Order: sequence, then structure tokens, then C-alpha cells
Amino acid sequence: MSLDAQILQSLRAAGPGAVSGAELSHRLKVSRAAIWSRVEALRCLGYDIQAGPHLGYRLVSVPDVLHADDLRSRLDKTQVIGRQIQVFQETTSTNDVVEKLARDGVQEGAVVFAEAQTRGRGRRGRKWVSPANKGLWFSVLLRPPLHPAEATQLTIASATALRRAIQTEAGLEASIKWPNDILIRGRKAAGILSELKAELDQIRYVILGIGVDVNLNHADFPADLRTQATSLKAELGREVARPDLAVAILKELDRDYSRIRRGHFAALAAEWEEHCETLGHEVVIQLAERRVEGRAETLAEDGALLVRTDHGHLERIVGGDVTVTVSHQGAR
Amino acid sequence: MSLDAQILQSLRAAGPGAVSGAELSHRLKVSRAAIWSRVEALRCLGYDIQAGPHLGYRLVSVPDVLHADDLRSRLDKTQVIGRQIQVFQETTSTNDVVEKLARDGVQEGAVVFAEAQTRGRGRRGRKWVSPANKGLWFSVLLRPPLHPAEATQLTIASATALRRAIQTEAGLEASIKWPNDILIRGRKAAGILSELKAELDQIRYVILGIGVDVNLNHADFPADLRTQATSLKAELGREVARPDLAVAILKELDRDYSRIRRGHFAALAAEWEEHCETLGHEVVIQLAERRVEGRAETLAEDGALLVRTDHGHLERIVGGDVTVTVSHQGAR
Repeated sequence: MSLDAQILQSLRAAGPGAVSGAELSHRLKVSRAAIWSRVEALRCLGYDIQAGPHLGYRLVSVPDVLHADDLRSRLDKTQVIGRQIQVFQETTSTNDVVEKLARDGVQEGAVVFAEAQTRGRGRRGRKWVSPANKGLWFSVLLRPPLHPAEATQLTIASATALRRAIQTEAGLEASIKWPNDILIRGRKAAGILSELKAELDQIRYVILGIGVDVNLNHADFPADLRTQATSLKAELGREVARPDLAVAILKELDRDYSRIRRGHFAALAAEWEEHCETLGHEVVIQLAERRVEGRAETLAEDGALLVRTDHGHLERIVGGDVTVTVSHQGAR
Repeated sequence: MSLDAQILQSLRAAGPGAVSGAELSHRLKVSRAAIWSRVEALRCLGYDIQAGPHLGYRLVSVPDVLHADDLRSRLDKTQVIGRQIQVFQETTSTNDVVEKLARDGVQEGAVVFAEAQTRGRGRRGRKWVSPANKGLWFSVLLRPPLHPAEATQLTIASATALRRAIQTEAGLEASIKWPNDILIRGRKAAGILSELKAELDQIRYVILGIGVDVNLNHADFPADLRTQATSLKAELGREVARPDLAVAILKELDRDYSRIRRGHFAALAAEWEEHCETLGHEVVIQLAERRVEGRAETLAEDGALLVRTDHGHLERIVGGDVTVTVSHQGAR
């Protein structure tokens, strides 16, 4: 861990209290002058650190920037996710960057954030609007010991983790739209793009690409998306601290990934179903070659959506675009 | 199609007969001098083309080299496979080359051959010995409209196509060892490495890597593989024309891929089962963390192997290394 990260970790641990330069110097095994110099550098990044001869150092506030070392220091207790973190000011798509890491043999748990993406993408090659410093656009590299057909488990895990983190950090009640959108009051606030590379019988790696519309304004969305998309800020009426949300999401994801690796997927699926707004509703699903209409009944073991059509037939849906058509009167 | 390929196609169509320079010139819309010059060039590659003032041109024999244009001209009736063919004298692994093509957006059906591979690989990162000019080492790019869990269909198709082509071209009775080896008299003569890239619900591309030990000698195999591996030449006692075998495999593969795209997978699976030497036998399967012993009963719909263990339990096997342990007394 970098000295910056260690200093921030010590200051965070002290909460509203202060830590003396002497103590930091002793604990981190560097001179008091070195501590002072790094504190100055952190102040330049926007960290508000109070200091005084008798007070010691106190962390008053942190800026809304993604600082790789700082994020890493706040994730020191995760099992897999966040072992390595990179932050780019701008990149094409964080999934592309992580794919390069994956091909280079980088271990699972690596996370790549970008403050802005120039070619952010959603499912099926659609564009994902990713304006600078307003959202969380990041990708996570996993190497799960799963069969390709079981990859759905990871998308389910991403959705549950993302939902919980939004709830705890922003206090917003979010729901899941099958297969992998996060909605707040019926509008999409986050999405997941899972990409996988596999041999026939074994996943080589999975890239979970996650996009969260944190502090976007209405005007940041393209005109044609404004009625369907929202941001945490728009729903809450105030900005949400992106570093705190990022840490919360990665911690929750680490927890759900552990559940999968321990074979506890059933508990995860139950949590997913409880918060899935698609189940129990009339849906229209547009597939490449046809349309399916019916009632979304339940989730199959492998994550497929089971839809009861008007003819009483149970259809297994593994992809396509879902529109929930009725019975939302109560909610909105 | 190149002029070389058009000339060879015309000569092949004439069978043992000859085609006059005037007719070739008229048909291919180039001068007789141009025809003569290309015939000379083809002779340099090893094509034995007889010519005489009153005879015209006659194709006597073709060399055992992989000539991209010639292969392409012989595959002009396939629906998808062989639309684009590249031949490298040497490359690391043809799967790597096709992966680059796939990422660059190349259409499905592209095929890449290498006369030699320096880093040929089999399943799970194992080395695949690929000495120069002795085998067929190639990869095919497909973009099937399938769910990742359905990718097994393509491996099944590759195995049936490969088996049929070896039978018709070399007259050798081959069998399939689950999941994707081709055996002749119990020894491995060809293998398939399928790699896929997918989103959660949709395959983006599949690379079928196929290696056939055509004209390898016993001494070409590493010492530790000699008892398990064989070549068509070793089994047949004579060399097999690699271009003819390559064309046959690609045609059969095109046929099976069409069957999959038309939803006729069941017929393919039945053919696969008929020739699978694993089914009905006692097997030992070494998985990452444990060993399964029992009788290989049948193939599940998704291509998994169903094994009845000694405790009477039916286990679903999707990967691992299979050893067929008994009841081969009759065959060898």
C-alpha cells in the first residue's frame, strides 16, 4: 500500500479524532517531514486535512475523486475483489482495459475505474453514456471455477451487490430488472455488462462491467433516454460521494462472490428474486426473431426467465429486451 | 477468387481431360500469355500441370501444400465456412490469429491454417505438437446465434464433421472420445479446442481450433505421448493428401453448422452418440478437485456426460479428463 493510502487509512481509523505526526511517523516508519510532504500532496488532490502543532492531523473531508491507493486501502479486508485497482482519467471502455489485463494473465480481483469512458458500452453493443466525474464506470476481473453455463450466477451476484450498496450508501430503494438492470422508481440507474471468455467446459475469465449513474443531471442523458434513465442524484436531490459508493459496491460484490465460490448460490438467487421487479408482472420480450408476451413467473436455476404465455405455455427466456407492461399502478 | 484459383478450378472441373489455353483465356477473361505465366507459377508451387500445343492444360497432380486460393476455390459451394482463408507458414497458434480477426469484426466462416505452430495448444493450456507440413492445424471463426450454454453444440458438430471427413478421405474408421477427441483404434489422432467469447446471454464468437495428426511419424510425437497418440499415416501405412482432407473437413463442418443453425441439433447428437466410444463404458474422470468412476451412460441435452457411479448415483460431468478403463478387449 502506498504511503498516501496508509496515511489516509490511519486518519480514517481515527474517525473525528486527530493523529499526531509523531505517531504517524512511528507507525508508518517514515520521517515526520515525509508525512508532512504527502499530506500536502493529498491536499492538492482535494483531501481536506487539518493540521496543527498540538492537534496532529485530522481528516475533515475527502474529495469526490477516485484515488486508486485510497480505494485499495479501504478494501484491505476483501477476499478477492480490489486486490489491484487502477483509475484512468479517460479510457475507451473499462471492459477493454480489463480484457487486456486478463489476456496478460493478471489475477482475479483486479478492478479498473475510469473517470470518463469515450466508448462505454451496454449490452449488445449499445452505447453507454459515461460523462466525466459523474458516475462510476468500472470493470472487475474474475476467474471463477465455473462452467460457461453457470456464468449467469455472477450477473445475479452483481445485481444483488449493486442493489444493496445503493440502498446502504444512498438510502434509495432499488429494484432489479431481469436480467441485469438496476431501477429506481422504474427508471434505470445502473447496468451490468458481463463478458466471458471460456473453453468448452471451463470459464477462463469473466469481466463484470458496471455502470452507475451517480451524479448525472437530467441533461447529461441523451434526449431519447431521459424518460427511462435516472441517477442517484436525481432521485435523492443531492450528490452521492462516489468513492464511498465504489467501496460499498466492491465490498458487497466480494461478499456475493464468496457466496458463489462456497456454493451458496441459492441464497443469492432468493435475494435476487425478492427484489426483482420483473417477476410476477406481464412482460413483452423482444427477441432477435420474435416477440414473447406473458407473465414472468420465476427464475430457472441457471438464471433464465420463465414466462407463462397467453397460451399457457412456459417459455424459457435467456436474452432479449424486456418491457414490463402492466401492474405497476401501485408503485408509480 | 484469384486467377490461380480460377485456373485450378477449371482444370479440376475437366477431371482427367485437358482444357485449351484459348478456352481458359475466354472463360477467365485474360490473355493466353497471362494463363501461361500463372501456370508456370503454379508449377513452381509443385502443381504438376501438363501442357502441349494441341493438348491444352491438364492437372496431373497437386502438391501437399496448403494454398489459400486453391482451398477457397474448392469451397465455393459452402454456406458459411471458408468465405475467407489464410495460410501462414508458421504462427504461434491459429486460435490466436483468429481471435485477432474476431476482435477486428471479421465475418464468420474465416479459416486460418498454419503449416507449423510454435505454441499450438490443446485443452486447459496443454501443448499441442504441430510440426511443419505434417498435419492440419487450423481455426474457424463462427458467430452462432446461440446462448453460451449452447456452445457445446459446436464442439459436437466439429467432432462429427471431423470423424466423417477422416472416414471418407482416409478410409479410416474413427471414433469420438468425450468431449472432443477423435480416436483411431483407441489412439488420439485429432483434437478440438473450442474457445468462446460471450455476453451473458449471447455468444459473440466461437473459435474452433482443430488439430489433425495427418502425416506425422511415430518419432514426431513426444516420447510421453507415443502410446496414446497416432496419425492417419501411421494407421494407414501411407500419406494422406492434406489439402483434400482440409477441404473435406471444412465441407463437413459447413454441413453440420447449417444443421445447427436450422435447429437440427438432435440428428447431430444422435450421430455423435453412435460413434462415441466413451458411452457404455466404464470410465474414470479426473476433475480438478476429485475423481469420478462409473459407467458413461449417455449425453445430456447440453452435451454433458452422464455417468452412473458405483453407488448408483447419476453424475453430470461437464469437463475433466476421461480415461476409458475397461471393455475395450474386443476392439484392440
